[in-house]
Amino acid sequence: MKERTKHKTAVVLLHYPVTNREGDLITTSVTNLDIHDISRSCRTYEVDHYYLVTPILEQKALVDRVLGHWETGKSKEWHPDRFEALGRVQLLPYFHEVKADLNARYPGLKLEVAMPDARPLPNQLNYQQTREKWEEESEPGVKVIVLGTGWGVAPAFYSEVHRFLGPIYGPLGADGYNHLSVRAAAAIILDRLFGIP
Amino acid sequence: MKERTKHKTAVVLLHYPVTNREGDLITTSVTNLDIHDISRSCRTYEVDHYYLVTPILEQKALVDRVLGHWETGKSKEWHPDRFEALGRVQLLPYFHEVKADLNARYPGLKLEVAMPDARPLPNQLNYQQTREKWEEESEPGVKVIVLGTGWGVAPAFYSEVHRFLGPIYGPLGADGYNHLSVRAAAAIILDRLFGIP
Repeated sequence: MKERTKHKTAVVLLHYPVTNREGDLITTSVTNLDIHDISRSCRTYEVDHYYLVTPILEQKALVDRVLGHWETGKSKEWHPDRFEALGRVQLLPYFHEVKADLNARYPGLKLEVAMPDARPLPNQLNYQQTREKWEEESEPGVKVIVLGTGWGVAPAFYSEVHRFLGPIYGPLGADGYNHLSVRAAAAIILDRLFGIP
Repeated sequence: MKERTKHKTAVVLLHYPVTNREGDLITTSVTNLDIHDISRSCRTYEVDHYYLVTPILEQKALVDRVLGHWETGKSKEWHPDRFEALGRVQLLPYFHEVKADLNARYPGLKLEVAMPDARPLPNQLNYQQTREKWEEESEPGVKVIVLGTGWGVAPAFYSEVHRFLGPIYGPLGADGYNHLSVRAAAAIILDRLFGIP
């Protein structure tokens, strides 16, 4: 497209509510690399905000430490690209606070929450179709892309989602292996929605 | 495409020869996460081989330890997807040994080495064009995608490259930010070349 989408955009990495392999509701840990890799991907694809969601307060200290490190003289000077990428990172305890933050920043713009899901669902658009739809919309809105950690987003969250995106497949489609890291999935999703092919 | 490419495919992550920010020739360290993330992306996109290239012998011990961990009972049982992904990982000291290994595995198949590069170069094809060209070729070959670490692949390596792929851009193209992690870049490149949109 050679220009930014008209919409405001956000990526949300949910550490809660997600499930473990048994389907129990858990909170996963924030990792240093999820902060760095996904913030750099967000910066590349001109995503306005990258939210980490966890109710565990100690995790906020970790995130502040990572962000603080890259704001200091030497690191900032040596890695201005990282400093720049991290500028859009924010940690919030719950998803409803993400929505409140976006509504406060962009009053009047409609929020649309999109989330990849491996289940075949009615009205599911693939990435190209979603991209075209968003490009065709006449009114700018706020497009929120939600990614899960652990064994996936808990069903309790589904009611927040307006649009389920398909899973990311390789050449064999649903018959293939589908265990990308969340960092790889985030990169591919942003490229499909906002990249120049 | 809903079927695997006819070609044999490999991803190579070069830890040598690469440069630092000053352009000096260096060897970077292998990281646990580069092994995991990129092997899972390779598995998703049905890439046959994932080579880590470093002449530092101690790194081989690290890689063997990581691979060994996931081969043991508990880890293998709990994370069969990781075990499966790691099965295509191999560490070799130099790129010429990668070529020798591929030539030995696939005698008679022609090797083509492709590498993303930020410079605009003559005869450069974008990812879609490369994908179409590879699909149209009547003879199966071995397609080798080389990725750098550090501040990029050293010029001394360029003579190995048959095809330079373009850089990965976001919506602003060359005017935008271009500092994806190698894990994110690998995922996007494989999706562009082999994914189902």
